[in-house]
Amino acid sequence: MEKISEGRRRVNIDEIRSDTPGCVKVAHLNNAGAALPPRPVIDAVTEHFTLESTIGGYEAAERNAAAVDHFYEAVARLIGARADEIAYVENATRAWDMAFYAVPFAEGDRILTTTSEYSSNAIAYRQVAAAKGVSVEVVQDEPDGTLSLDALEAELVKGNVRLVSLNHIPTHNGLVNPVAEVGRLCREHGVLYLLDACQSVGQIPVDVTDIGCDLLSATGRKFLRGPRGTGFLYVRRGIVRTLEPPFLDLHAATWKAPDGYDVRDDAIRFETWERYVAGQIGLGVAADYASDLGLRAIEARVTDLAQRLRAELAALPGTTVLDRGTRPSGIVTFTVDGHDPSAITQAARVRDVNINVTHPLDHGYDTHALPSAVRASVHYYNNDEDLDRLLSVLKQLGPHG
Amino acid sequence: MEKISEGRRRVNIDEIRSDTPGCVKVAHLNNAGAALPPRPVIDAVTEHFTLESTIGGYEAAERNAAAVDHFYEAVARLIGARADEIAYVENATRAWDMAFYAVPFAEGDRILTTTSEYSSNAIAYRQVAAAKGVSVEVVQDEPDGTLSLDALEAELVKGNVRLVSLNHIPTHNGLVNPVAEVGRLCREHGVLYLLDACQSVGQIPVDVTDIGCDLLSATGRKFLRGPRGTGFLYVRRGIVRTLEPPFLDLHAATWKAPDGYDVRDDAIRFETWERYVAGQIGLGVAADYASDLGLRAIEARVTDLAQRLRAELAALPGTTVLDRGTRPSGIVTFTVDGHDPSAITQAARVRDVNINVTHPLDHGYDTHALPSAVRASVHYYNNDEDLDRLLSVLKQLGPHG
Repeated sequence: MEKISEGRRRVNIDEIRSDTPGCVKVAHLNNAGAALPPRPVIDAVTEHFTLESTIGGYEAAERNAAAVDHFYEAVARLIGARADEIAYVENATRAWDMAFYAVPFAEGDRILTTTSEYSSNAIAYRQVAAAKGVSVEVVQDEPDGTLSLDALEAELVKGNVRLVSLNHIPTHNGLVNPVAEVGRLCREHGVLYLLDACQSVGQIPVDVTDIGCDLLSATGRKFLRGPRGTGFLYVRRGIVRTLEPPFLDLHAATWKAPDGYDVRDDAIRFETWERYVAGQIGLGVAADYASDLGLRAIEARVTDLAQRLRAELAALPGTTVLDRGTRPSGIVTFTVDGHDPSAITQAARVRDVNINVTHPLDHGYDTHALPSAVRASVHYYNNDEDLDRLLSVLKQLGPHG
Repeated sequence: MEKISEGRRRVNIDEIRSDTPGCVKVAHLNNAGAALPPRPVIDAVTEHFTLESTIGGYEAAERNAAAVDHFYEAVARLIGARADEIAYVENATRAWDMAFYAVPFAEGDRILTTTSEYSSNAIAYRQVAAAKGVSVEVVQDEPDGTLSLDALEAELVKGNVRLVSLNHIPTHNGLVNPVAEVGRLCREHGVLYLLDACQSVGQIPVDVTDIGCDLLSATGRKFLRGPRGTGFLYVRRGIVRTLEPPFLDLHAATWKAPDGYDVRDDAIRFETWERYVAGQIGLGVAADYASDLGLRAIEARVTDLAQRLRAELAALPGTTVLDRGTRPSGIVTFTVDGHDPSAITQAARVRDVNINVTHPLDHGYDTHALPSAVRASVHYYNNDEDLDRLLSVLKQLGPHG
């Protein structure tokens, strides 16, 4: 019987799967897209939404105020932060935006990033670079595709670096960047450090103190198994006052008639007052669910499943596993000779096997990436049968299309 | 039997109430906060959320792609726009932000607004004014509290106005601003016009062609009866290319490796790719629901109920109705001598009567407003019994506290 374990706790995978309604129907290997939520998350969202419909939206938020507030404690516990360092934001993109666009760039400042950066972030760098005379510099990789720490240090030594900004786990390949080592270098050089943890939170241990980042953005819907339309931003207490959010409302700031305002001095300054309240409650439940299972145990199981999948894929004729890095994540990317990745995804979909495709427009600065590949991303609730269902689809693809 | 009618169509209020589960429990007079959703909205959101949990988030969005896309048609129909002029945004604040912070202000530009402007917007004006050397000028009122068109024209004539920005219906009193007349003046003077329609969409007819605004922001949760955590932005087709959104992602723009991007040329440029998909579907259903009932009929009923409530309140000893304007909205504000508005709201809440309180920090530039008042906001699904329940609470308040 498969187990997920940490210390004395052992959790039966069958129990986890029976706590996940989606497991009945699909072999869900699209966790880097959006994972299947567990029943406590589904119930929390549904119950609050129903309460809103029954007694009113504001009235429901008032009645469930403790659950709404618990979100901050739950996320803080998950990533080793304080509750007042957490902002609830509409999604990871907006969370990252609120941090990035708050950085007070001046002409001549440099932004350092990685080849594997997400294209949305690359677009934002370019927008700010054009508006403010900032340069965007892509730090060299190690041969395995991860950020080169030597190259990063060499760039930091040159000076004028306003921001180091990178992702923890890229969306389009299986590597894990050396984020704690980057944090050590950023602290040594007194440089602001923004980490896009969209694909890592909920998949592997993410502790902001260990990492040493100043800002971290994440989403609810991926490995955290929370609702779509939710995300959060961590802002280190020591820097929050130095960053005025790009947007302000009367929750982030207090109006001082006739013509002034005071911005809050905690991470709430990055929030909007109006929000998807049911989602906030659900994201708090998802954070607790992950913390309770334990991120080390989750990581161990994700790694095992991903490595088994990579090995089985590599053994299939014509199939090439593309993942790089010294410490592979739960994101498995591959191609099959003669078969278009989209066609493979469709062939899997009709058999209720959920996988996805990486697109060239997602690759940021990565010149190594293929235009397109199949992405199968595992989570701890997947089992061998899920992997077998995917392998069966691939074995039946037929002659090269 | 109460009816809501437009042309040949007549809808029974009892039928509308039986289509609104919340009506069983509460006398909901907090529609300017968040209205009770009708069953089709509740079902659409719940069904999509359940589908996400059952087959996966991306997979559910793919299966319900037609309903997701229908949102644009539904909102366009509601406000007399084209589907490609509509952006789905996380809430009205973010929708307004995406428009306002996109305006390319230069030093010396002037922003013209109203005394009744929402404080969140006032905070944003001040932030941009400080950053860009722009002046924020509050146009004089008519004696009844609505924007003075003569005063607006006098300011427009002086030149250098980059933006006219105001609300349609303020949050804290019952007036309706003369938005179409403002639109005519803005067009005459070639000035950009941003309308905050947060409290008007779903309550009264809002037609962007009649109004002549360039940008309009609105929320789902108020009079439109949509889900919390949803909103939209209208961007007139003729100006969309002139406004680069303050944030960009790979949905709003296309990445051009190695270091460039193209921004979309429709309103989608103001969106984020990741979103609360169930909410988007629900907001589309809410827009259809309102359009099908007819906004003229809705307005007529809201006005009737609000006027009855004002008359009854005015007849209560010690009660003062505060609403101003020549054309009162469904937002009714009042005070009761010797009773704190918060205490009144609490006394109502325990009897399942939902009302709210206006706060001094919401009042923007309005020096006329009291520090605090009770706000009872009616919608077409309210009935005389709902109003009687509120009046009964007020009559039993007891001796002055």
